[in-house]
Amino acid sequence: MLAELAHQRRRAFGARLRAMREARGLTQEGFAHDVGLHRTYVGSVERGERNVSLDAIWRLAEGLGTTPAAFFER
Amino acid sequence: MLAELAHQRRRAFGARLRAMREARGLTQEGFAHDVGLHRTYVGSVERGERNVSLDAIWRLAEGLGTTPAAFFER
Repeated sequence: MLAELAHQRRRAFGARLRAMREARGLTQEGFAHDVGLHRTYVGSVERGERNVSLDAIWRLAEGLGTTPAAFFER
Repeated sequence: MLAELAHQRRRAFGARLRAMREARGLTQEGFAHDVGLHRTYVGSVERGERNVSLDAIWRLAEGLGTTPAAFFER
């Protein structure tokens, strides 16, 4: 059973990632290429469909020029 | 190939987790029980051996009364 809370947290992470990517004027495809991940993977993370790992969180943060803390700050 | 950078980041996460747990006077076993994870899993995370997931990061943070940002702040 995956709790609704976990879904909410995945969606919040994805929404934050998308907002930060768009704020930098990066396309999903260009950003995915920069961080060495597949575009469809990045899309699924942004939609909150993934239980993204620490390694991936760091790569996504790096691609945005920030650290993982930025994904979780209020 | 797992880059050395990824190992460093896992170890940094684990060290931060351990320091925060100990600062709260929690044993590894008691803390693991509180967050509903196995003691040996928490131990392996603290040693930097795990590519811990977003869901687990949130549970660990909750068990410490904080948010995931705390694991990544400098």
